[in-house]
Amino acid sequence: MEKRKLMYEGKAKKVFETDNLELLIVSYKDDATAFNGLKKGSISGKGIINNKMSNLLMQRLEKNGVPTHFVEEINDRETVVKKVTILPLEIIIRNISAGSFSKRYGVEEGITFETPTIEFSYKNDELGDPLLNSYHAIALGLCSKEEIKIVKKYAFAVNKYLKAFWASCGVILVDFKIEFGKLSDGTIILADEISPDTCRLWDSKTKEKLDKDRFRRDLGGTEEAYAEVMKKLCGHIREDI
Amino acid sequence: MEKRKLMYEGKAKKVFETDNLELLIVSYKDDATAFNGLKKGSISGKGIINNKMSNLLMQRLEKNGVPTHFVEEINDRETVVKKVTILPLEIIIRNISAGSFSKRYGVEEGITFETPTIEFSYKNDELGDPLLNSYHAIALGLCSKEEIKIVKKYAFAVNKYLKAFWASCGVILVDFKIEFGKLSDGTIILADEISPDTCRLWDSKTKEKLDKDRFRRDLGGTEEAYAEVMKKLCGHIREDI
Repeated sequence: MEKRKLMYEGKAKKVFETDNLELLIVSYKDDATAFNGLKKGSISGKGIINNKMSNLLMQRLEKNGVPTHFVEEINDRETVVKKVTILPLEIIIRNISAGSFSKRYGVEEGITFETPTIEFSYKNDELGDPLLNSYHAIALGLCSKEEIKIVKKYAFAVNKYLKAFWASCGVILVDFKIEFGKLSDGTIILADEISPDTCRLWDSKTKEKLDKDRFRRDLGGTEEAYAEVMKKLCGHIREDI
Repeated sequence: MEKRKLMYEGKAKKVFETDNLELLIVSYKDDATAFNGLKKGSISGKGIINNKMSNLLMQRLEKNGVPTHFVEEINDRETVVKKVTILPLEIIIRNISAGSFSKRYGVEEGITFETPTIEFSYKNDELGDPLLNSYHAIALGLCSKEEIKIVKKYAFAVNKYLKAFWASCGVILVDFKIEFGKLSDGTIILADEISPDTCRLWDSKTKEKLDKDRFRRDLGGTEEAYAEVMKKLCGHIREDI
């Protein structure tokens, strides 16, 4: 696998073309941004943790019926993934009230919902990633009705699996953001990443935040939190073997 | 029917209790507000037009399978309605892009959607009536899954009927906001009003705005527009008889 032209550089990742037209190499950075890029910083070691955690979780999801872009981890920060066209939607699943949900609807954080919620936001930095529903997404031509149906099915399956998985690691999955992409034949697969950058993860016992909210809210100990939640995940995987 | 205590005074209406516990009297004002109350003014004669138009349309919807709160028009500005507990949701149906949709998603006004969109916003002035979806509404305890299902069914039925009705009056129904309420036995019925305050109505030929956008956007001729759209409606009803 030969790394070729830099195709895209985002907030937390670089994506490179390869000598295989169907494959890309993702390279995870330590850079962190929040509030649509208004806050910028770095979380030392984050790239390594996000790369490894995302890969571990995607492999498990793949075995549990959710197709993903994961192909092969090639080093601490880099992974080969299937090339997709990303759907311009962020999919957010929430098990417990927190963050923008609490702010938008004026409710405290930490309320456990009877059933999880799903929401979409339109990936558009200029517009501030506005919330939309499936009718809007279809009217705007962002995806088809059939694609929305598949995305919703997979998103709830991801939540079901990850919620139970994190619980067995001693971690509460509060909410998370995922993205899906389309292969050249139209097949929809889970893409992007699953990490403390994209999930709210609270320690089951202490309720301590083990995710990017430590950076967003200047809580301190961000590096330690990322390391801690990775340790919990690896500890569980070892027991699991 | 005896008018008793003022129960509620809103932006455009007063609601009075009556000697019948199950009935209220709605009194339509000429006052107009926009942008969550930031803009205030008056549209002379609006109360009369909104009262009469809403009553005419609700009676037709009732005959077409949508239960409404309408009981009896008692004078130019006042109507007896069934007492309901209003669901804290604004239901917005859009046939054509305009207003907050265009602003939120960065698209021009006037794009006709292949299928209409439906959206909910949480009736909460302090929070600025934020957009929410059915999962959020249920998680927040605003209504049940079954209630959402009924509301959606009626909302699309209202759109189907009104779109065709306005078309036959030479008017395009661009979008509208409706509200539903619950009778004491839990039955869901259409409440609030249907008027140029709550609908975007464009002249089919000239595309001229015949609704509250004239007030919102300082286009002038607001009174004339309300009178014009009422004339088109009445003209059609006369032909219809």
